[in-house]
Amino acid sequence: MKYCSQCGESVAKRIPDGDNRPRYVCGQCETIHYQNPRIIAGCLPYHEDKVLLCKRAIAPREGYWTLPAGFMENGETTAQGALRETYEEANARAEIMGLYTLFSLPHISQVYMFFRAKLEDLDFYPGEESLETALFSESEIPWDELAFPAITETLKHYFFDLKSESFPIRNQDIVIDRKHAPIN
Amino acid sequence: MKYCSQCGESVAKRIPDGDNRPRYVCGQCETIHYQNPRIIAGCLPYHEDKVLLCKRAIAPREGYWTLPAGFMENGETTAQGALRETYEEANARAEIMGLYTLFSLPHISQVYMFFRAKLEDLDFYPGEESLETALFSESEIPWDELAFPAITETLKHYFFDLKSESFPIRNQDIVIDRKHAPIN
Repeated sequence: MKYCSQCGESVAKRIPDGDNRPRYVCGQCETIHYQNPRIIAGCLPYHEDKVLLCKRAIAPREGYWTLPAGFMENGETTAQGALRETYEEANARAEIMGLYTLFSLPHISQVYMFFRAKLEDLDFYPGEESLETALFSESEIPWDELAFPAITETLKHYFFDLKSESFPIRNQDIVIDRKHAPIN
Repeated sequence: MKYCSQCGESVAKRIPDGDNRPRYVCGQCETIHYQNPRIIAGCLPYHEDKVLLCKRAIAPREGYWTLPAGFMENGETTAQGALRETYEEANARAEIMGLYTLFSLPHISQVYMFFRAKLEDLDFYPGEESLETALFSESEIPWDELAFPAITETLKHYFFDLKSESFPIRNQDIVIDRKHAPIN
């Protein structure tokens, strides 16, 4: 951030009065430009013992498999965001069965939220951001080709919980120290 | 938003190629300025059968009682944000016992997350954003003077769950139609 989005003048990073961390502050109109974590909302869409995955057509992690998920938009609920992304990435309609996993990723200031969602039909097909969409049972999951740690964790929990058909909500942190692990 | 924070030129609201909703886009450098929901992280700090509340010293809802909570910051986990706010607003140290309630508030593009947190000691006192801090049992809670619906809901769930000492995580939507209910 270099310029104030309110008045167009230059911003500088400083600690505002009454605050305790540096913010971008406008030298002209004094507007403080806060920056906050973003939410990625997604679904774990399932049919019988299989889960719907999407092969990513875009960076990051193009060509790797993911659960349908993306940035939550203003004006929607987390569940609405998860269903919207499921439709956009896989043209899949699903019914939310419950919140399932949450992950804080402080190194990239993101919070992931996944919902278990029962597929309403099997007429799914890749959206613009996907190369392929397919159902996978536990033994078919491409564990070495999953796009993000939050996907791997959610799928591991799911196939474990599926045995008892009990799905407690799990809140986890995924902390990656960029100094020691520059490649995510 | 009127100006591009990257180059300082004017922005206009339009639907970018490949997108499906209006965004602020810079006419000069083409930067798309996404705006996304923010997370409010907080604690339900307790001691025996009592809960710590803070009387707000600032708008909105100055003079009303709240659980300590505030905007999650970049670089922290949701639990770290909740504990930080608890310390800032009530100078209280607490131990996270688990995630407890989540609320989507689409009309103001916010997601609330509260953690149950056991107070480590009773040496709390008001921070700069609080007028008072105090412990309340169920019968002492100032139900008509609570600051926000998410606070009321979390406290109702808590005192109900306290009877069975079982605290399932709850995800709820709080939808207020501004057209019909202009005063929140």
